[in-house]
Amino acid sequence: MTPLPDILLRPIVETALREDLGRAGDLTTDFIVPSDAVLRAAMNARQQGIVAGMDLARLAFTLFDPSVSFSALKQDGEAVHPGDCLVRVEGPARSLLSSERTALNLLSHLSGIASETNKLVNAVSDFKAHICDTRKTTPGLRLAEKYAVRAGGGLNHRFGLDDAVLIKDNHIAVAGGILPALERVHKNAGHLVKIEIEVDTLAQLDQILALQETLPVDAVLLDNMPAPLLEQAVGKVGGLFLVEASGGITLQNVKSIAATGVDLISVGWITHSAPTLDIGLDIG
Amino acid sequence: MTPLPDILLRPIVETALREDLGRAGDLTTDFIVPSDAVLRAAMNARQQGIVAGMDLARLAFTLFDPSVSFSALKQDGEAVHPGDCLVRVEGPARSLLSSERTALNLLSHLSGIASETNKLVNAVSDFKAHICDTRKTTPGLRLAEKYAVRAGGGLNHRFGLDDAVLIKDNHIAVAGGILPALERVHKNAGHLVKIEIEVDTLAQLDQILALQETLPVDAVLLDNMPAPLLEQAVGKVGGLFLVEASGGITLQNVKSIAATGVDLISVGWITHSAPTLDIGLDIG
Amino acid sequence: MTPLPDILLRPIVETALREDLGRAGDLTTDFIVPSDAVLRAAMNARQQGIVAGMDLARLAFTLFDPSVSFSALKQDGEAVHPGDCLVRVEGPARSLLSSERTALNLLSHLSGIASETNKLVNAVSDFKAHICDTRKTTPGLRLAEKYAVRAGGGLNHRFGLDDAVLIKDNHIAVAGGILPALERVHKNAGHLVKIEIEVDTLAQLDQILALQETLPVDAVLLDNMPAPLLEQAVGKVGGLFLVEASGGITLQNVKSIAATGVDLISVGWITHSAPTLDIGLDIG
Amino acid sequence: MTPLPDILLRPIVETALREDLGRAGDLTTDFIVPSDAVLRAAMNARQQGIVAGMDLARLAFTLFDPSVSFSALKQDGEAVHPGDCLVRVEGPARSLLSSERTALNLLSHLSGIASETNKLVNAVSDFKAHICDTRKTTPGLRLAEKYAVRAGGGLNHRFGLDDAVLIKDNHIAVAGGILPALERVHKNAGHLVKIEIEVDTLAQLDQILALQETLPVDAVLLDNMPAPLLEQAVGKVGGLFLVEASGGITLQNVKSIAATGVDLISVGWITHSAPTLDIGLDIG
Amino acid sequence: MTPLPDILLRPIVETALREDLGRAGDLTTDFIVPSDAVLRAAMNARQQGIVAGMDLARLAFTLFDPSVSFSALKQDGEAVHPGDCLVRVEGPARSLLSSERTALNLLSHLSGIASETNKLVNAVSDFKAHICDTRKTTPGLRLAEKYAVRAGGGLNHRFGLDDAVLIKDNHIAVAGGILPALERVHKNAGHLVKIEIEVDTLAQLDQILALQETLPVDAVLLDNMPAPLLEQAVGKVGGLFLVEASGGITLQNVKSIAATGVDLISVGWITHSAPTLDIGLDIG
Amino acid sequence: MTPLPDILLRPIVETALREDLGRAGDLTTDFIVPSDAVLRAAMNARQQGIVAGMDLARLAFTLFDPSVSFSALKQDGEAVHPGDCLVRVEGPARSLLSSERTALNLLSHLSGIASETNKLVNAVSDFKAHICDTRKTTPGLRLAEKYAVRAGGGLNHRFGLDDAVLIKDNHIAVAGGILPALERVHKNAGHLVKIEIEVDTLAQLDQILALQETLPVDAVLLDNMPAPLLEQAVGKVGGLFLVEASGGITLQNVKSIAATGVDLISVGWITHSAPTLDIGLDIG
Repeated sequence: MTPLPDILLRPIVETALREDLGRAGDLTTDFIVPSDAVLRAAMNARQQGIVAGMDLARLAFTLFDPSVSFSALKQDGEAVHPGDCLVRVEGPARSLLSSERTALNLLSHLSGIASETNKLVNAVSDFKAHICDTRKTTPGLRLAEKYAVRAGGGLNHRFGLDDAVLIKDNHIAVAGGILPALERVHKNAGHLVKIEIEVDTLAQLDQILALQETLPVDAVLLDNMPAPLLEQAVGKVGGLFLVEASGGITLQNVKSIAATGVDLISVGWITHSAPTLDIGLDIG
Repeated sequence: MTPLPDILLRPIVETALREDLGRAGDLTTDFIVPSDAVLRAAMNARQQGIVAGMDLARLAFTLFDPSVSFSALKQDGEAVHPGDCLVRVEGPARSLLSSERTALNLLSHLSGIASETNKLVNAVSDFKAHICDTRKTTPGLRLAEKYAVRAGGGLNHRFGLDDAVLIKDNHIAVAGGILPALERVHKNAGHLVKIEIEVDTLAQLDQILALQETLPVDAVLLDNMPAPLLEQAVGKVGGLFLVEASGGITLQNVKSIAATGVDLISVGWITHSAPTLDIGLDIG
Repeated sequence: MTPLPDILLRPIVETALREDLGRAGDLTTDFIVPSDAVLRAAMNARQQGIVAGMDLARLAFTLFDPSVSFSALKQDGEAVHPGDCLVRVEGPARSLLSSERTALNLLSHLSGIASETNKLVNAVSDFKAHICDTRKTTPGLRLAEKYAVRAGGGLNHRFGLDDAVLIKDNHIAVAGGILPALERVHKNAGHLVKIEIEVDTLAQLDQILALQETLPVDAVLLDNMPAPLLEQAVGKVGGLFLVEASGGITLQNVKSIAATGVDLISVGWITHSAPTLDIGLDIG
Repeated sequence: MTPLPDILLRPIVETALREDLGRAGDLTTDFIVPSDAVLRAAMNARQQGIVAGMDLARLAFTLFDPSVSFSALKQDGEAVHPGDCLVRVEGPARSLLSSERTALNLLSHLSGIASETNKLVNAVSDFKAHICDTRKTTPGLRLAEKYAVRAGGGLNHRFGLDDAVLIKDNHIAVAGGILPALERVHKNAGHLVKIEIEVDTLAQLDQILALQETLPVDAVLLDNMPAPLLEQAVGKVGGLFLVEASGGITLQNVKSIAATGVDLISVGWITHSAPTLDIGLDIG
Repeated sequence: MTPLPDILLRPIVETALREDLGRAGDLTTDFIVPSDAVLRAAMNARQQGIVAGMDLARLAFTLFDPSVSFSALKQDGEAVHPGDCLVRVEGPARSLLSSERTALNLLSHLSGIASETNKLVNAVSDFKAHICDTRKTTPGLRLAEKYAVRAGGGLNHRFGLDDAVLIKDNHIAVAGGILPALERVHKNAGHLVKIEIEVDTLAQLDQILALQETLPVDAVLLDNMPAPLLEQAVGKVGGLFLVEASGGITLQNVKSIAATGVDLISVGWITHSAPTLDIGLDIG
Repeated sequence: MTPLPDILLRPIVETALREDLGRAGDLTTDFIVPSDAVLRAAMNARQQGIVAGMDLARLAFTLFDPSVSFSALKQDGEAVHPGDCLVRVEGPARSLLSSERTALNLLSHLSGIASETNKLVNAVSDFKAHICDTRKTTPGLRLAEKYAVRAGGGLNHRFGLDDAVLIKDNHIAVAGGILPALERVHKNAGHLVKIEIEVDTLAQLDQILALQETLPVDAVLLDNMPAPLLEQAVGKVGGLFLVEASGGITLQNVKSIAATGVDLISVGWITHSAPTLDIGLDIG
């Protein structure tokens, strides 16, 4: 998969390093470790999962000290098992010890997201449904977290409020209905802006289908609908536009959701609540 | 509990708003919602837990639009139950709809941390042990996440590499033993810097105890020790310095760890892997 | 039209004020103007055009001095004629004189873009074609310049490399043809990402049309095609997707381009080469 | 000519790259172009003019990817003709395609300014008059645009409000006349601060000449004066200080203005309204 | 005297507050002081001197907490004596106690500079000589420190390398003499750029005087010259341009330097080595 | 001694370079010095003292121009005498001349602090007392100034309000006494936070000693106490915790203060009022 350019990642890593180093740097290491001590270390998986964030880990070590050599043995998107070596680093002992936590925090956070995403992706592999993310991301890390979703095999939903239209229930309520909402959107949206609309009932879906000639949408978001209703909805739509299911998705129920024939299943918790993937640094 | 000053929180919220608004702002809302529409909304808990991050939520709304009124009905550190209203906001509909996700992301992330922390705190309430955090935090959010730990009733471990000495196994290895490590630290550390040292065996602990007259420590970190060993260690130390247990702590085993008499139990996953607390915004 | 939120505009205005004030502020005004002198002034159009950038002008005055009162008499998107008053400001004379140039620079730059856009929009008003912009914007000002295009009645093309796919000739060349290019895009793109492809010959267009069932596009970009060819292309497409004309558009030829039936006409110079709209500040 | 140091240019280019890459980078290139594809390309002039901004173009490519090699075949200030190659770049295809637009936007914007400046400079080459710029620059780009003016053969007027005194009509009005204005300036200005004053009538000029012994100025700005009046003014001043003409300068009338004997002719539109110089990137 | 605009001061104060508050804010105050406690306090001079930096002090309190009321009883440039009250503040006790050190650090640093400057200014009050500063300022604080020099009655020398030409011995050496150095400067400098040149011997001064018709300078800098030589130099120059003395100036010898008739006496230590003015905060 | 990581120093140096270069760079050098001229220069001590800030000086040269070679002949913390060469630099003449002032400002400022600190350190070398700093630092430079204190042989007191508790008279007053103040601190402080308390009378000291079993402190700060009282206090404390003397310390009286047996002597003026160490740049 395509890495994000360093120029987008650097501010994240600089902030992370500076918040850890504070105003005096690494007291313990500076007091104890001789300046000429050299170290080799490996970042090893202690848990099964999918790697993401190798570039962030590399930047954590090399922005702290450009003389550190960083060799990636795995790539973002690759599966790892307990004991697998992801990275070998070598350089001044002080530099490795002072930047390892930042590297690990970044790598294990993104790998956690990739791993959870991938479990869902695998669970629905018999179906056409894609797993995708939401805007429920950790503040400041959206671009990295959405990258991790891609590493896990998922697709990205909107990156922000500005790159597609997603008409939600509140918008419909304020607008006074689906018709005026769609009219206003079509009057204003640029030609590269896709339009998706949230649907809570099949009656609403019928309304949207009836407008498809004049006020077409690219996708509907079926929020919190049980599988049987989803299946009915998919049937009604008949491939005219994409159908996204959302809300209450778990590793247990995702397969049954996918079996309804929906095109997309969006899941908030893969970014906002994924536990980190356990990765450790071992000397030697 | 004491809130963090806005001047520390503002950069976090500005970054979060800008990454969501992108280069064109909230397309959907701007297309659909009239500029003079006014809205009232409530942020309601959909899950039981502890609130944290009210100031971040307030800043999300008011940095976007200072005319939004934000009334907190709960305080950081307070328990909430499903249905409880945390916040009432009122203002231009566009402003509320464009900033709600940022507010919710921040509030539910920190409340998730406070809630997980609090479960552990409650589990050990019969013992003197305090729950505390680690440096395994989400990059860019450390000060906010450590605040959330306090909101959940926990204590904070080091804020960074610069505000205490924590001698780990790798430091001891590079230094060539506990004695030279402690000697170097005592030679260099300022008088307000506390010293903690990681201990993997009781033999190491004996060594530290033997040096306590000349090279005292403030605490030892017993990493991944089973409860019986912890108990022995606590007995050996006899209150001479603090004893911290770490590694593999779960909601299931934390009580038995606390029962060993340790002073502190540090837990990485309360910051790096806490699921968010489910909080939603309801119009009206 | 919907204004951009201040939180996106503030960094632009702060940078502009600081680059003008330098390290010592406004020497002339500070030396000459008494601190208690109060002034009223008007920003008046000296040329016919369309206004854009009122919020930037407001921020220039009020970020410099919050006590300045700023009253907008025109709105972004509104037409003005020589002599029309756009804004009335009142406040400390020093503040007005020190911030007026920044306000004027911003307002006249964006109004220039809106005005040029609007001339094109008017020229094609008998046709369905929309005028839209490109990524040829002034570095650092893209979001403001694209806003100005909207103020002038235009639509926005991509805001950046990340919010839609636009397959250009070089991409096709590197990919080894239209087919592999479209295959790779369809394999990777999220469901909210629209796909546009550049077409240099009618033969290429035929190829794309033949793939429309399996590898559909949302739009084609016909680069530098003369009107008769454009017309042929529009006929071939038959409304299956949008047709965008680009390259060499002038105020003189735009109507004949629109008459070919294209949906979109994109023009680089409305952002990269629009002369400013002449707006001046008059005291009193 | 002397280039600006990279440390002043880097923030401009980083902002430009980030606003184009957004939160997901270059979707099209990332989807289509293999990571190991290598490309050679040339930046070629498609129009006659003067080059400026080579360092900004270099930084656009190399801040995105330090492995890109950038060879400048022309220097800032040099004339180019259609077909002339300005730059050869070589490196990873993805890197070149993702950063070319930023490089072109910067280079063509500054070259446009240099080219327009140069036309005026050439038009007055038979006279002693210098062409100079104003503070009417594009917000955020002043230092680069003023550099481009130098590349075109022009001189720079004030860089900001803080590096010289320029007493304008409003200052004179608020001060209550030329005498008190000059008195206050002379009382306050440091010894390295030059003093220029705007003059609207020959009577005002006489006043200034009468004060030259006690309250000298370094230059007068004759705003919007017709050529015959300018000539009279030049005669009156007799070389005692510099005479600057300003307002309504065009390529058509600039020679007649220069013929009046003025020392400086300042022109706002060379920075605020110069069309870009057409430069393109060609593969191979 | 004219204050600097807040928009230039705010970044300095925000940096100062954040470096003091770190990642957890004011532990002591937060632990001890009740959130509803209110305090009144005064900033009192404990030493005689000149005040500078009132706006920075105000921003320290009010950026931390906008509800703090700040009343200035003295103005920048005013003399104070031990016991004089400079400022009264009132507000939440926590806010006052957490921001007082930042306010005091800024105010006492700038007042120290103003006070030392003022001693020199008073010492030369019988002569026409002005005291001025240099570029030997504390990194990051130049604009504030130069403001403090003005508050002390001094004039400002260059604000940076870009706002005047100062030809030093090394430039002359590299250029191959005074003549080529002045030629190159005159060929390149804009009309608002003043020219000063360093002179180490009277022979050099003669050379400059001989060139004054064709390559005039605005000032000469006589570096480390004893008073008799200075006097000779002043005589030679005869008012043709300004004469600046520099190097080795003390409070003891400044009067004798001024008595030589020089126009300017520049002193590095008023910015780089001025002790702070002792100002304290007293409760009540 | 251990250097601070570049990632913490770079923002300081970038700010310093940019405030000196302004919007046009080094006019004098750019006008006069040929672009291919190469220079060697040395930074030489002109005064006796202790060096600090070599990394900042290195960054000043190399952030301006990475091709400059910088060779340190002395290390931070080392003593220098008049004429000693600290650094040799070699590279483009323009680069050296444009960045030397920034390098010298940083190096001489920090070396001044190290040198003053060292004088105090030497004065008390017969006693166990350590010299330490305070929070009275120059805004924006705290981490660098505290580093310089270490280079001079001193210890660091708190880096900010967040890394230790220091209970001052105002806190005690607001809390209503020493007992409630200590109770609140002990209830809230994390286990790595040391506690120090200010003591103005021996009676207060007795109170603290009486509470030492239940509410222990790590140190007391005896503010402005004469030596005899300090001696009594030291006797009372008997090594139970550290004793810090503060207030009115001079090079003259510091030995007598140390002779009282205190552990720490904190001095504000080593950071807020240290004169710079005289260091110059000599060509060749």
